[in-house]
Amino acid sequence: MHTKRIRFPGLEKRLMSAQEAAELFRDGMVVGMSGFTKAGDCKAMPAALAERARRDGLSITLITGASLGNDSDGVMAEAGLLARRMPFQGDATLRRKINAGEVMFIDQHLSETAEQLRAGNLDAIDIAVIEAVAITEDGGIVPSTSVGNSANFAQQARRVIIELNLSMPAALEDLHDIYVPGPRPGRRPIPLTHCGQRIGTRAIEVDPARIAAIVLTDSPDSPSTILPPDAETQSIARHVVGFLQGEVDAGRLEPSLLPLQAGIGTIANAVLHGLVGSPFSGMTMYSEVLQDSAFDLLDSGQLTFASASSITLSERRHQAFLDDVERYRSRLLLRPQEISNHPEILRRLGLIAINTALEFDLYGNVNSTHVGGTHMMNGIGGSGDFARNAHLSIFVSKSVAKGGAVSSVVPMATHVDHTEHDVDVVATEWGLADLRGLAPRERARLIIERCCHPDFRDELRAYFERACAQAGGQTPQLLGEAFAWHLRYRDTGSMRP
Amino acid sequence: MHTKRIRFPGLEKRLMSAQEAAELFRDGMVVGMSGFTKAGDCKAMPAALAERARRDGLSITLITGASLGNDSDGVMAEAGLLARRMPFQGDATLRRKINAGEVMFIDQHLSETAEQLRAGNLDAIDIAVIEAVAITEDGGIVPSTSVGNSANFAQQARRVIIELNLSMPAALEDLHDIYVPGPRPGRRPIPLTHCGQRIGTRAIEVDPARIAAIVLTDSPDSPSTILPPDAETQSIARHVVGFLQGEVDAGRLEPSLLPLQAGIGTIANAVLHGLVGSPFSGMTMYSEVLQDSAFDLLDSGQLTFASASSITLSERRHQAFLDDVERYRSRLLLRPQEISNHPEILRRLGLIAINTALEFDLYGNVNSTHVGGTHMMNGIGGSGDFARNAHLSIFVSKSVAKGGAVSSVVPMATHVDHTEHDVDVVATEWGLADLRGLAPRERARLIIERCCHPDFRDELRAYFERACAQAGGQTPQLLGEAFAWHLRYRDTGSMRP
Ligand SMILES: CC(C)(COP(=O)(O)OP(=O)(O)OC[C@H]1O[C@@H](n2cnc3c(N)ncnc32)[C@H](O)[C@@H]1OP(=O)(O)O)[C@@H](O)C(=O)NCCC(=O)NCCS
Ligand SMILES: CC(C)(COP(=O)(O)OP(=O)(O)OC[C@H]1O[C@@H](n2cnc3c(N)ncnc32)[C@H](O)[C@@H]1OP(=O)(O)O)[C@@H](O)C(=O)NCCC(=O)NCCS
Repeated sequence: MHTKRIRFPGLEKRLMSAQEAAELFRDGMVVGMSGFTKAGDCKAMPAALAERARRDGLSITLITGASLGNDSDGVMAEAGLLARRMPFQGDATLRRKINAGEVMFIDQHLSETAEQLRAGNLDAIDIAVIEAVAITEDGGIVPSTSVGNSANFAQQARRVIIELNLSMPAALEDLHDIYVPGPRPGRRPIPLTHCGQRIGTRAIEVDPARIAAIVLTDSPDSPSTILPPDAETQSIARHVVGFLQGEVDAGRLEPSLLPLQAGIGTIANAVLHGLVGSPFSGMTMYSEVLQDSAFDLLDSGQLTFASASSITLSERRHQAFLDDVERYRSRLLLRPQEISNHPEILRRLGLIAINTALEFDLYGNVNSTHVGGTHMMNGIGGSGDFARNAHLSIFVSKSVAKGGAVSSVVPMATHVDHTEHDVDVVATEWGLADLRGLAPRERARLIIERCCHPDFRDELRAYFERACAQAGGQTPQLLGEAFAWHLRYRDTGSMRP
Repeated sequence: MHTKRIRFPGLEKRLMSAQEAAELFRDGMVVGMSGFTKAGDCKAMPAALAERARRDGLSITLITGASLGNDSDGVMAEAGLLARRMPFQGDATLRRKINAGEVMFIDQHLSETAEQLRAGNLDAIDIAVIEAVAITEDGGIVPSTSVGNSANFAQQARRVIIELNLSMPAALEDLHDIYVPGPRPGRRPIPLTHCGQRIGTRAIEVDPARIAAIVLTDSPDSPSTILPPDAETQSIARHVVGFLQGEVDAGRLEPSLLPLQAGIGTIANAVLHGLVGSPFSGMTMYSEVLQDSAFDLLDSGQLTFASASSITLSERRHQAFLDDVERYRSRLLLRPQEISNHPEILRRLGLIAINTALEFDLYGNVNSTHVGGTHMMNGIGGSGDFARNAHLSIFVSKSVAKGGAVSSVVPMATHVDHTEHDVDVVATEWGLADLRGLAPRERARLIIERCCHPDFRDELRAYFERACAQAGGQTPQLLGEAFAWHLRYRDTGSMRP
């Protein structure tokens, strides 16, 4: 079977086991691995490298597209392999090690990692490990269900290891559009002007001489674990859909809207799902990840094209997609994350970006990453790329977390990932605050009345009034009690008085 | 004299006094005015509108390029004219009213105001008031010492008022390059690929029928009030120059560097001045404002081209420039601020961006705007546009302010304008911390040892160690004492223990 998949003559000589390929690694190396929100991650090398870490004390810097599946990050972290990790993760074990200060985690805007590597702002990649569905007659690497940073890793690395995943259908070929911006100075404009446009090649072009090993695998991507829409997320979705309808009614948007981006996770997926059956049609997506909801909209016929860097689906949908790629071929493209998230393109297209906050404050400053201001959840991901450059930047969150003990609308965000400048709209299940063109004190009044859970509303209103009276300023805050709710939660297990 | 300046036939019939033109305004209107860091602001209309506010209670939303000169913002604020103001200011009287909650100030990334107007995210401009040096035979408006948002205002406004400034030399004509991005969807790439490239027209194209009034003026721009380099700023400059030299030595930069951007104010000017006589040559600038230091570098021959949106100089330099524009013509272009600050172009060119922090924290989060977390200084300006998209984002600050009572390096920034993701390097007079590729805990150690004033270093180190031990996490902080230094300053007049 793999002979049809390794089409460049002679390359099958580089076939070896993951254990043999793992011997190519040296302590302190910088390794670039495929994988983006669990999709297209390497299935065999993580365990083989973890084994070397346990046996030989191997320790590396690992850079990926985004999060890996198959517990790989956990297995590698547990084995002590990961000295440094960037630019995103979503694994419970690795998260624990990061928050214990045992793994140095560098949280980055997902469009920037490739740029920083190219600029020399990060140490160069020694070895790239890329999951592929085929190697073309020219030696091109055809990625699987994500592109992520794989093109950049493969082109920059001294040696490339391919994980050829035989369980991935060959039909995934031709779904990718690989474009890598040129060096600076002298870079040309990126020619992309609409979601469905091809601007690059169908495979990652590398000199086959640098392909040091090919490892055969057959494990599937791990399924997405997001939860189905519930009453709260459906309510958030209704508010967002109502807001967009208002924009159409006011003549600021066409019924086809503008290209949509939706963040990872349960809530953003539910909001996008809320567009199914809405009056909008002829929609497009220019996103980072396509979750189940994007396929719901492709299936409903409302979405005419979806461009992203990865496809991360629930078990059922994932299999259905792999079994019938043809059904989607003309409406789908996977791009490098540098292109799916590129400020140049996002600003040009003018997206409607929907991302999720852990908490946001009175003034619309958003914390997407740090629980209690200190503990990393996943990372900023692409939310900053999208929120900064969107036509409309929408942040959604449930109004409370932890069974109602925690308000997600707080006096002051304990960590800021997105400043008020990059947040046009916030919504919880209680309502939506349209913050465009408003000064901070005006934003505060709307956020309190529309978004805060009623159980916390009086206290938040009282805080705001006291801050205006006692501190004043453009952005009234009481530095002595700005985090009082969080301290109460720490000490009593609840933010409630 | 003005007949050579009003070249479109018949337009001189619209000549009128500022008082007459002020009668065109109605309560609640949105007004777009020229002016960017004091350059090219309107000299007559602000006072005439203030007069109407005092007489008739007129109140407007005022949008400009950036800050105005000639105390205009103060005069207008004092008269109660300004209900709302965006996107930047720098006036003591207006600042007081903003911080008292009397003027609603909307602080914006300077590349975004025009985009938000075009998108309908802000209310449309009713009247544009633009300082010009000429109106061409086609009715084109030739701006003076800044472009700012003038092109966008003039094209979007229902009516346009021109302030024709006869004291500005006609030689300023042909220094401007006016390009306005098209509507979305369907926008094309902005074709600019190097600093000196012309991509637009020499004047702002408007339908002359919309020119409702022409007011003659002859007052000069107000001079910049930045202070000359002192021991501390020279020391900061030495650290930055040394760092850039290291980048050249390591082969990551050419001796011509990459296009430079330097922020407004005393400190950024001093740092740029520090490049005079440095080993770098063939440099270019792609900045927002050109201060004295840019002209020092043009004069030293090290700067081959400077592109910006405004020219803001000290009195002496300003006059010398206006007296001899020819000397600089081939090395200077003024562009709309949307273009000087556009993410698409900044990311493509790959700038070295140098901006100033009021304070930054242990982890490199930067506060550029809010004194004590509450009180607006000027605004975020273009610092976010540049810091986010630069090849290298450098923030500079003196290590202490207020005669040493305040440390500018603090446990937690009281307001975040630039998150750690957008800050590659921080420098004070004590040293420079190269934060590239480092995790927060690593950043903290460097910032404490390199940048913090020695008088605060022990306490900051102790805070950090305690935060690691007691709170832990990716970004250790003690929410109960993160702002203790600021509270101490408020209560005792000093952050010192
Ligand atoms: C913010 C983010 C974690 C939300 O994820 P989600 O699946 O939609 O939301 P959930 O409500 O299930 O919340 C996830 C967890 O955060 C917790 N949480 C939510 N709000 C919280 C708060 N204010 N304080 C503490 N914990 C909170 C939830 O309890 C849940 O914890 P659990 O997993 O232990 O049950 C996720 O969107 C994220 O990582 N975002 C950053 C990256 C990003 O935005 N990328 C976008 C471009 S793809
Ligand atoms: C941050 C900024 C105010 C610094 O300006 P500067 O002229 O270089 O610096 P100075 O040291 O003179 O500081 C300006 C004022 O801030 C005060 N200041 C500085 N650090 C402070 C701190 N940590 N806490 C309180 N006040 C502080 C100074 O005391 C001074 O006050 P004064 O005018 O009452 O004397 C200015 O750069 C700015 O407004 N930046 C935001 C916009 C921007 O960066 N634009 C860049 C693109 S053009």
